[in-house]
Amino acid sequence: MDMEKVNSMDFGEFVDVFGNVVERCPLIAAAVWSQRPFSNSEDLEKHFFAFIDALPQSGQEGILRCHPDLAGRELQQGTLTAESRREQRGAGLMSLDAAERLRLAELNAQYRARFGFPFVLAARLSDRAAVPGELARRLQRPPAEELRTALGEVKKIGRLRLADLLGAAGLAGP
Amino acid sequence: MDMEKVNSMDFGEFVDVFGNVVERCPLIAAAVWSQRPFSNSEDLEKHFFAFIDALPQSGQEGILRCHPDLAGRELQQGTLTAESRREQRGAGLMSLDAAERLRLAELNAQYRARFGFPFVLAARLSDRAAVPGELARRLQRPPAEELRTALGEVKKIGRLRLADLLGAAGLAGP
Repeated sequence: MDMEKVNSMDFGEFVDVFGNVVERCPLIAAAVWSQRPFSNSEDLEKHFFAFIDALPQSGQEGILRCHPDLAGRELQQGTLTAESRREQRGAGLMSLDAAERLRLAELNAQYRARFGFPFVLAARLSDRAAVPGELARRLQRPPAEELRTALGEVKKIGRLRLADLLGAAGLAGP
Repeated sequence: MDMEKVNSMDFGEFVDVFGNVVERCPLIAAAVWSQRPFSNSEDLEKHFFAFIDALPQSGQEGILRCHPDLAGRELQQGTLTAESRREQRGAGLMSLDAAERLRLAELNAQYRARFGFPFVLAARLSDRAAVPGELARRLQRPPAEELRTALGEVKKIGRLRLADLLGAAGLAGP
């Protein structure tokens, strides 16, 4: 998809295509449409990230709270978004054994209780073997630092999803 | 539902219950959870409205762009949210004849082209006879004034949805 096509979209088309660049936050894509035309994919990405950065802390926490747990209830129940399902499957999180699932569920619950938002990780840049250790590590960090790290993961996820949508070779996963 | 119950919710429960107080913007409910505990329903409503008011203009336009057209494609296709379907049905917008539907579709398209967001109206405070006239009237207004009016309608819709959820007698529709 080239930028000329993106820039020609009305807001309904734009939100249909880019509404889940930030998980379950179509409001952000709908806001970014105000900034068109976009000169290239970096420019488009820049506006997504600038909107996130400009939100008050409660809004940034709100973005994180719209994300599902990794290998959590929504994966079991089949209610993940298509993008999240693909990412979690790609990281091998659909083929955990019972003990691994339980371990992750416990860590996820501890993380949510400590920070007030779920553990967010760009699963496509990780895998099932690495996730529990990364979660346990981030669980120990100061809340303000962890909020910044988690928003950085939201941006990594968004960058990969944009690359998929815009067809950037080399970045897009299977 | 009393405030004690609301204040005891974790963010997942809170977003499940209040995620569509602002149409298709669960991010807002997820952000408002940061402000708990809430002293009463007015206090809860105040935090929803304050979040909307604090957004940059692109974010406020983004909220509006997450709303469906009245009597539009989504009503025909059955893809409205449960709340919006109930509200549009209550206003009689499901029983328009072909000429009325066409007239509204034309006005909706003109409005979207002029303002860059869809026509938003608290349908429960209006009805099928009044909607086309109100749309035609608002179509004539200056953009900055119309943005304020439209956000006022978002708040009226949110107030009624909150009243439904909290069981406030007298405000809740059938």
